Amino acid sequence: MNDKELFTQNRLFCPGPTPVPDQILTAMSDTSMYHRSDEFYKISRECSAMLAPLFGSKNLPIMLTSSGSGGLEAAVVNLTAPGDKVVVVNGGKFGERWEKLNRGYGCEVSVLNLSWGQSPKASDLLDLIQKQGQTKALFLQANETSTGAYYRIETLVPEIRKNFKGLIIVDCISSLCAHEMRMDDWEIDAVVAGSQKGFGLPPGLAFISLSDRAWGNLSARPRFYFDLARERKGQAEGRSAWTPASTLTLGLHAALKMMNESGLNELYKHHDRMARASRAFAKAIQLKLYCPESPSNSLTTMCMPDGVDGSKVVKELRRRYQAFFAGGQDQLKGKVIRYSHLGFVSVFDLINGLSALEFVLADNGHSFDFGAGVKAAMVELRRNTARP
Amino acid sequence: MNDKELFTQNRLFCPGPTPVPDQILTAMSDTSMYHRSDEFYKISRECSAMLAPLFGSKNLPIMLTSSGSGGLEAAVVNLTAPGDKVVVVNGGKFGERWEKLNRGYGCEVSVLNLSWGQSPKASDLLDLIQKQGQTKALFLQANETSTGAYYRIETLVPEIRKNFKGLIIVDCISSLCAHEMRMDDWEIDAVVAGSQKGFGLPPGLAFISLSDRAWGNLSARPRFYFDLARERKGQAEGRSAWTPASTLTLGLHAALKMMNESGLNELYKHHDRMARASRAFAKAIQLKLYCPESPSNSLTTMCMPDGVDGSKVVKELRRRYQAFFAGGQDQLKGKVIRYSHLGFVSVFDLINGLSALEFVLADNGHSFDFGAGVKAAMVELRRNTARP
Repeated sequence: MNDKELFTQNRLFCPGPTPVPDQILTAMSDTSMYHRSDEFYKISRECSAMLAPLFGSKNLPIMLTSSGSGGLEAAVVNLTAPGDKVVVVNGGKFGERWEKLNRGYGCEVSVLNLSWGQSPKASDLLDLIQKQGQTKALFLQANETSTGAYYRIETLVPEIRKNFKGLIIVDCISSLCAHEMRMDDWEIDAVVAGSQKGFGLPPGLAFISLSDRAWGNLSARPRFYFDLARERKGQAEGRSAWTPASTLTLGLHAALKMMNESGLNELYKHHDRMARASRAFAKAIQLKLYCPESPSNSLTTMCMPDGVDGSKVVKELRRRYQAFFAGGQDQLKGKVIRYSHLGFVSVFDLINGLSALEFVLADNGHSFDFGAGVKAAMVELRRNTARP
Repeated sequence: MNDKELFTQNRLFCPGPTPVPDQILTAMSDTSMYHRSDEFYKISRECSAMLAPLFGSKNLPIMLTSSGSGGLEAAVVNLTAPGDKVVVVNGGKFGERWEKLNRGYGCEVSVLNLSWGQSPKASDLLDLIQKQGQTKALFLQANETSTGAYYRIETLVPEIRKNFKGLIIVDCISSLCAHEMRMDDWEIDAVVAGSQKGFGLPPGLAFISLSDRAWGNLSARPRFYFDLARERKGQAEGRSAWTPASTLTLGLHAALKMMNESGLNELYKHHDRMARASRAFAKAIQLKLYCPESPSNSLTTMCMPDGVDGSKVVKELRRRYQAFFAGGQDQLKGKVIRYSHLGFVSVFDLINGLSALEFVLADNGHSFDFGAGVKAAMVELRRNTARP
């Protein structure tokens, strides 16, 4: 038997890029759309308007042609100035990126270093902020993609807000669409997201939304390509400052329409259900969760049992099933695998991926009741499915 | 008669985005390609290798996920430091952009202001450089897209090089693929290009190639997303620092393969032939060229006769024929139209566009021998076509 027959094309189960549905692919095929035309301006305006509720803000997010890291840079260069004191949560590769960005741009950085897999505590952050004094901004993730920890922004940020009036800037690149974001209600000043995550698009667009307060307090420092004030000038008409990635914008429009049709509440429930099923799978075949206390709804990070090499599992999943899971990075290399259910991943896609994982684990020294994982996932999915 | 029937979809005759051939569209449809996979690394490496000859350099260009303006920013932030003395040629909107970028990033800028449509003279530039003293870098366009002037880099730069040893940085966003670039031979230190121009791709990628000297003298200033040294680290393996616009990269690979099949000399000859035909068209129906002395091979800028409103012509071309020409900007608004023949535009596409233009001019107060323009273009095209 040629295992590859099971799948006829690559299947993406990594935390971005996520699968692109045909409707979006088709929308992106309209390459003759001119970006300086009334037709395109209308699409841009509709994109901004449809994006805003995902950020939970009355303000329109800015769309940037860049990777998510470009969006993170936009937050730093528009909201901080050299010498500003900032606090950064570092609980993995992306917390590390906030730290590097802020240091690179001359901020004075205090870091809350977490053991990987942990989530920050409000009290630790407030202590650090008090110790630093005159903290201008706090930078953190909603979802630390390298560990799969979700930082429970909905309770963490309001807790911090009781004693911190500075800017709060949240990297939601891998959480938006999977976890609800209500930046206005929670008094968050900037939220960054990226196209190739919850939006089911290829990479190339980043989104950033600012609070009124952030818009009113843009910092003084040189910036050009990521100058948000410049982008905001033409936003009401749908004009971007620079040439936008027009085909990706057309895809975004299609993606947002699909999300709107199901409704955002359904979207969050869907991701919650997918994550619960993945956790049930792991439990049923004796894989420990890497972040049991606060696992993400975007991806599930599973520890490899002793004697099973996670890097080899990831490689074999690719080779035998064209299934692209993510492995562990740095200290987690070989020790975990990260399974993503972010974006346009259906219940049956999920079962496909988990099934492939069982095949590979069974052949790589893990001893378990073969099939029990998928069974448990199916039971969990059915429990959370509306019955006709 | 419904004029719109002539064309069944938008036709792009503006200087970017340019038409995307089906082969490229198909290549971009492989959305399940993972950007951290051997397959994608190979494609990235092949893209860099195929790009290099277009820049005329032994060095590999860096691919950035951004608009062309992001590439311009990369040149400025990697090669200048605050306080550096630079000279900028400003002969239109894009020269203006070099000026704004350099001023925004704290350089001391001397500007050679040209009347729009003019090309810079080496002697004027050398005078300015001598007057400024200790000029670190000279920034100019190869092709000023807003006017359609080509700055004859192949003679201008070697002339300047006789008396200037500083950095020479050329925006080739709208010239690459249409005009030959030999940055090593001409001792150019940085060349910037963009995907939606000569490469026949949608917007979203920028390219920048540096000379050995530039790589060896990167400036000290904060940068992150556009940090070229960071991008260069993984380049030999095909790894980008940030998540690349993967579908556009697949399209780029297809575009470069197509160019290689015809050969780069054929590519430059094609653009030269298209430009000659467009100029013959203009002459035959009494439209003056805006830059008669040094017109670009990427686009032809034609002056509107007295009494003909160029803005209205551009609008009608869109409404009646879905043909997207570019109008004049700022002081040229209404006075010129810009007709692009850059990228994957065939002889017959060219005739389509010129034909549409004759229809609209005839209905907007220009009196000429209807059909004579296309006839002249056809004669010129045949003159420069290999006979079987």
